[in-house]
Amino acid sequence: MTTPVSNLRINGDRLWDSLMEMAEIGPGIAGGNNRQTLTDEDAVGRALFQKWCEEAGCTMGLDQMGTMFARREGTDPDALPVYVGSHLDTQPTGGKYDGVLGVLGGLEILRTLNDMGIKTKHPIVATNWTNEEGTRFAPAMLASGVFGGVHTQEWAYAREDVEGKKFGDELARIGWRGDEEVGARKMHAFFELHIEQGPILEIEGKDIGVVTHGQGLSWTEITITGKDSHTGSTPMPMRKNAGLGMARILEAVEQIALSHAPHAVGAAGHIDIYPNSRNVIPGKAVFTVDFRSPDLQVIKDMENKLREVASAIVGQMGLGITFEKVGGFDPVEFDETCVTAVRNAAERMGYSHMNLISGAGHDACWINGVAPTAMVMCPCVGGLSHNEAEDISKEWATAGADVLMQAVVETAEIVE
Amino acid sequence: MTTPVSNLRINGDRLWDSLMEMAEIGPGIAGGNNRQTLTDEDAVGRALFQKWCEEAGCTMGLDQMGTMFARREGTDPDALPVYVGSHLDTQPTGGKYDGVLGVLGGLEILRTLNDMGIKTKHPIVATNWTNEEGTRFAPAMLASGVFGGVHTQEWAYAREDVEGKKFGDELARIGWRGDEEVGARKMHAFFELHIEQGPILEIEGKDIGVVTHGQGLSWTEITITGKDSHTGSTPMPMRKNAGLGMARILEAVEQIALSHAPHAVGAAGHIDIYPNSRNVIPGKAVFTVDFRSPDLQVIKDMENKLREVASAIVGQMGLGITFEKVGGFDPVEFDETCVTAVRNAAERMGYSHMNLISGAGHDACWINGVAPTAMVMCPCVGGLSHNEAEDISKEWATAGADVLMQAVVETAEIVE
Repeated sequence: MTTPVSNLRINGDRLWDSLMEMAEIGPGIAGGNNRQTLTDEDAVGRALFQKWCEEAGCTMGLDQMGTMFARREGTDPDALPVYVGSHLDTQPTGGKYDGVLGVLGGLEILRTLNDMGIKTKHPIVATNWTNEEGTRFAPAMLASGVFGGVHTQEWAYAREDVEGKKFGDELARIGWRGDEEVGARKMHAFFELHIEQGPILEIEGKDIGVVTHGQGLSWTEITITGKDSHTGSTPMPMRKNAGLGMARILEAVEQIALSHAPHAVGAAGHIDIYPNSRNVIPGKAVFTVDFRSPDLQVIKDMENKLREVASAIVGQMGLGITFEKVGGFDPVEFDETCVTAVRNAAERMGYSHMNLISGAGHDACWINGVAPTAMVMCPCVGGLSHNEAEDISKEWATAGADVLMQAVVETAEIVE
Repeated sequence: MTTPVSNLRINGDRLWDSLMEMAEIGPGIAGGNNRQTLTDEDAVGRALFQKWCEEAGCTMGLDQMGTMFARREGTDPDALPVYVGSHLDTQPTGGKYDGVLGVLGGLEILRTLNDMGIKTKHPIVATNWTNEEGTRFAPAMLASGVFGGVHTQEWAYAREDVEGKKFGDELARIGWRGDEEVGARKMHAFFELHIEQGPILEIEGKDIGVVTHGQGLSWTEITITGKDSHTGSTPMPMRKNAGLGMARILEAVEQIALSHAPHAVGAAGHIDIYPNSRNVIPGKAVFTVDFRSPDLQVIKDMENKLREVASAIVGQMGLGITFEKVGGFDPVEFDETCVTAVRNAAERMGYSHMNLISGAGHDACWINGVAPTAMVMCPCVGGLSHNEAEDISKEWATAGADVLMQAVVETAEIVE
């Protein structure tokens, strides 16, 4: 490989202008975006991306999951392409940068190489993965999951939104179902730039997160059964308070995660109480415990400890309990060569950097199973994401795309 | 007063048949009843009660809140009536006995006195209070509250159901808005028979609860504000987990109530978490703490302790908190003479009995403010109420109505 010179930099103003132009499509109600997957707005956003790619001289590929592949040719017809990208779809109350920065950052690399007249041995393909968010059609990272062999396409097509519309039908409806077999493409490497969606880089004052691992995830849905009874006429010793049992387990979740510091985390974001009436002691509580760690054994330890401690808690209280594993994926260790390329790029260009573990799932996590992969992260204000107030600075975006480009171009090999 | 002879007993089979016939109106989906206040079903139930009362030779009064007063004359034109009753309206998924037993128990007294040709000095008035449940039009005990001067009639008329229909309009629509001024009636005494809605009598193996007090109630709605953030990408020390803050306060609520044993109780039946998504740390938790005690000072102590402890908990966690008192009433001490009449009746008739504190609110709690009042309770299976599976035995109903009759008749004074 040839190391790119450190003054090869992307055009930050152009990247920013493209981000702002894309954000005009599917505006949110509070300054962010609602451009959910396979909506009419998604189709408009895709068309704009296609237009930009074609203006940059690329040819667009489209697979049967609707994933877009904008290819800039390399000089070696036998060299596998280097892929770079993320997703253009957003949460219903999403921000302007989650995913979009990674796709338009990929496009900006192609534009910059064009500006400079730089040729690479390997083709470079800017990619827009369909339905990363998973809000409309669960699960998240659906198209990259099919690409990576995690899901079948048939299963993906049958995913339904709350109105009962199917993923496959909606993909056809908006006109973005391609003919290409999903996963048939072979990759030399894949790189994804993404906002951190957490507070660490900003707090640590670093420009760049070098993502070494993706956290593994375990979702356990717990149902506690007690007995609905009147809050007034049931003496304290006779209560079977499922809500109190839940409260004690939530404290245990916190302690279990803290006992696996510093990388493990745990919380319950989903909590439903039944019948949820002010004067009825809860007879049922259903909640989901989310444990994450970059270490698979730690996740298994936390799951086991949760079952042990929660069973003891409810046993003492005379409550019933069931556990159901409702989601999860194993930790990801990104490719050492690709990760090193990212770290070296940040170092070479003078950006401050630190290693990060991605707490969220990303398309890169699934692609890592089928190609050497790495991620670049840039800070976001207050760690806020999945929120219309999500914000980054032009400088952060520029630094992230600079590092992305250097890593991609080094991997794609400049032809002198 | 003349003490009634102990073999003056009601007709348990007739009472039970009437309970079963009333339960055919507004059947539930699971064997109970859905005869909510001011629905068409309520009107049908009222008409049946009126027919039965008229067949028993009573004259029916109807006040502007729709409360029904079936009067059996006394021998002394100047003697104030003894009132007896409860409510015919049910929860949306209610049982066949909550309220209904007290109304039809009152009717059964009149029928029995007719059977026996017994005259009383004081008239006896069997009463059906409108909207005790408060599920359709909050708050509960609405008509008795207006009667007792707790609410104005204008305010009561303006209460709206979830469809925006007003109490006053619905009362007129079903044809049960009377002309009589609410609260104009003066009472010699009021007695209410009710199922316990708690487990104590059944567990203690007692036929009769002699209700000495009604618990006071305090509802504090607590809002905890943290910060919505990603469950994966937010390190544990940087979290502002409103759900965890709530969990710790729920434990404190339990401890505060237990520290005021044996009569104080505390729980949260209402809990809402925002945004309630599996992968978002809760940024907000809203829940209502229900404290009850027969001692006003204990309620105030528990409220104060809650604010102190909860503030300390969230302070340590960097969370925000607000407290809003959203409901409450002071403890009730029932009239000593009336309570003694109930206890003596149980004793005289050979029913096992114990003193009880009513944990739930009842019409009797408001009427106690304007007339000497007492309550009789009978067991219910498993303490279950506000549930279609609510159940009692014919023997329990008979014992309760027997004791009710003896107390009412002693107070109304048999004319030899």
